[in-house]
Amino acid sequence: MAGKKVLIVYAHQEPRSFNATLKNVAVEELSRQGCTVTVSDLYAMGFEPRATRSDITGALSNPESFSYGVEMHEAFKRRALTRDIAAEQKKVQEADLVIFQFPLYWFSVPAIMKGWMDRVLCQGFAFDVPGFYDSGLLKRKLALLSLTTGGVASMYTKAGDNGDFRYFLWPLQHGTLHFCGFKVLAPQISFAPEYSSKEERKAMVASWAQRLKSLWQEEPIQCSPPWYFGQ
Amino acid sequence: MAGKKVLIVYAHQEPRSFNATLKNVAVEELSRQGCTVTVSDLYAMGFEPRATRSDITGALSNPESFSYGVEMHEAFKRRALTRDIAAEQKKVQEADLVIFQFPLYWFSVPAIMKGWMDRVLCQGFAFDVPGFYDSGLLKRKLALLSLTTGGVASMYTKAGDNGDFRYFLWPLQHGTLHFCGFKVLAPQISFAPEYSSKEERKAMVASWAQRLKSLWQEEPIQCSPPWYFGQ
Repeated sequence: MAGKKVLIVYAHQEPRSFNATLKNVAVEELSRQGCTVTVSDLYAMGFEPRATRSDITGALSNPESFSYGVEMHEAFKRRALTRDIAAEQKKVQEADLVIFQFPLYWFSVPAIMKGWMDRVLCQGFAFDVPGFYDSGLLKRKLALLSLTTGGVASMYTKAGDNGDFRYFLWPLQHGTLHFCGFKVLAPQISFAPEYSSKEERKAMVASWAQRLKSLWQEEPIQCSPPWYFGQ
Repeated sequence: MAGKKVLIVYAHQEPRSFNATLKNVAVEELSRQGCTVTVSDLYAMGFEPRATRSDITGALSNPESFSYGVEMHEAFKRRALTRDIAAEQKKVQEADLVIFQFPLYWFSVPAIMKGWMDRVLCQGFAFDVPGFYDSGLLKRKLALLSLTTGGVASMYTKAGDNGDFRYFLWPLQHGTLHFCGFKVLAPQISFAPEYSSKEERKAMVASWAQRLKSLWQEEPIQCSPPWYFGQ
């Protein structure tokens, strides 16, 4: 939708990968709509995933015993976060929609993207106490997980070996995005591109491109328990 | 149990933290039993969490388009993994039990520990196709997650805002550890040490120390769907 701002947080090492294609298609389609699209290409940026004392510039509020959560909250308030974190927070702050594009690693995001969540979504910026879940500080924003899997779709069903795909999305969709207040759009899961034919991969890309055309009309999914698991 | 080997993968920045105390108690109690205990102190090691081309020494099997999973599998077979990964794999290979000690970050492990999982548990070493879940390559080993939370226990129940704690443990206990064949012991969850009194924290440490005394007699939990969720 013209005028909307989109941040794509992208985690793949290879510019010729299927994940890169999905990211590129999103940039093209959203730009065509008149959106402003920003990409955080985490591997290309060499993004730091480790949550350490170096994330805080200047003195600590309690140098006797380092608590990452406490110090990040204090540092956010006095604008003392390290530059790469402040830059990502600015991108999130300006965005109407954040898309996460990644290959599933161990039923979750790759460590480099987990590090983005651990470091960028700090107290004071993304949530507060009180100020989480439906009152999370990013509550006027949308988020969407677009991921590829190794396994085929039938493995990610209630009766499959991997269980319903909603199970592994719980920590991300509810515990992270919903916690920060994001309205979460349905995930875009491209199953097993490695084991698919060229035509099947093309169809997955086309389906994502097609969905993006009417993305702004979508209703968010229900993230709260117990409805989340369809109960 | 005398003669057993234990690896503790530990992720906290602060040697005076509650997580450090839990780790130290495990080292002491298991050593007292006659176990050989090794600790991978990830922050102290400056452990690399990012999954990149640098993890493979020498030539790639497909330099045209980098696939981390494929290249790690090939590199494992020809002993071409980077030194830090090979060292961690050796520790896992020798261990009868792997304990993960960490503070919960976004319903999951901190990025530095996610990186340990992403990089160390590669195909050929931890699993193969076929050779996963009950036939995972680490199937003669035990694993246990020992974690601290920010929220209090009542939040992590089926009716609580965060849902049953088993929900967020699913990607770790089933999708990662069980996938690699580990028999998973019940998680040790120390709820909200930050919001507890000194006495309550002492009691949590004592309860962990007590449990460790008879740990080798425990039966693993059921990790497979649909039993995992108590259905």
